[in-house]
Amino acid sequence: MTEFGKPANFTRRVPDGDTQHRDVCTDCGFVHYDNPKVVAGAVVRSNGGILLCRRAIEPRVGFWTLPAGYMELNETVEQAALREAYEEAYARIEIDTLLAVYSIPRISQIQVIYRADLADPEIKPGVESLEVDLFSWDRIPWDEIAFPSVHWALNHFHEVSGQDVFAPFSNPDGETGDYPKAQRKG
Amino acid sequence: MTEFGKPANFTRRVPDGDTQHRDVCTDCGFVHYDNPKVVAGAVVRSNGGILLCRRAIEPRVGFWTLPAGYMELNETVEQAALREAYEEAYARIEIDTLLAVYSIPRISQIQVIYRADLADPEIKPGVESLEVDLFSWDRIPWDEIAFPSVHWALNHFHEVSGQDVFAPFSNPDGETGDYPKAQRKG
Repeated sequence: MTEFGKPANFTRRVPDGDTQHRDVCTDCGFVHYDNPKVVAGAVVRSNGGILLCRRAIEPRVGFWTLPAGYMELNETVEQAALREAYEEAYARIEIDTLLAVYSIPRISQIQVIYRADLADPEIKPGVESLEVDLFSWDRIPWDEIAFPSVHWALNHFHEVSGQDVFAPFSNPDGETGDYPKAQRKG
Repeated sequence: MTEFGKPANFTRRVPDGDTQHRDVCTDCGFVHYDNPKVVAGAVVRSNGGILLCRRAIEPRVGFWTLPAGYMELNETVEQAALREAYEEAYARIEIDTLLAVYSIPRISQIQVIYRADLADPEIKPGVESLEVDLFSWDRIPWDEIAFPSVHWALNHFHEVSGQDVFAPFSNPDGETGDYPKAQRKG
């Protein structure tokens, strides 16, 4: 669990005054309250194209994804989506509306995905991207998409194409966000 | 930062391979990756009434709030909203649609609030509630509402009353979720 130095020695127990089991360090007594993490991102459109980024980092190096990433402290979800688009594609975007809130319970992640517009045509790869590009719907590289939730977001985006107002999407029925077994590593 | 035992001795530094400052324990080397936390909740309607819970716990003991609380690991946002309604008011609810996604950056919190219906008229206070009740719009105790975001959610709920499909809300313009100074503790 640590990046350097002596590893923390966690044991699983219910801290005093709590009701849930937590990881508690037997060295220093630290209680690690672990909560789901929020990914903020956007389906960004520009002249009929959709912005995708080819991943330079694990997991799924070389596969295409939406500009999206973990929220940092002290920002709004919208600020996080704008920051990620800039970090991954140097894309300046304007949020249009909320497209979806997905949950991936196996990895305790929720994803808040907006529909957005590219505000400036200049894009280029950030350090976490090998390549960034705009794809028309019939050019999307479906076999090289990084994660199931990217499929969901692209399809949901397409489903409400031309609609200004719609109820945002959740996970497609029965979908949990896990990879199909054939795509899983290891 | 700890609940028992020797306090963890955290120092603020950039761990190897990271780009952000994090809290690192000088005793055991544990890196504390702190991310925004997700509150899931609902505006629950029943026969023209809205479910509110009077808080039995800090902060804001005695004030009224929506059934809502922190997501736990390995659940979906919708499951968390259902769980919280049951824990706080023994309310069995059915989610209708997403009402809002709010951000409270000062405390690194996001709130995912659904519009829901009470599926069973039986409600009673859970351990975190002193009292639970259904309020018609003109009986809502506006001066005894626990948090700014509860005001937002109630007003947004009212604004889309009778609408089946709408774009979910974000923070009202310029609002950050901080208490007005007069209401702040200490």
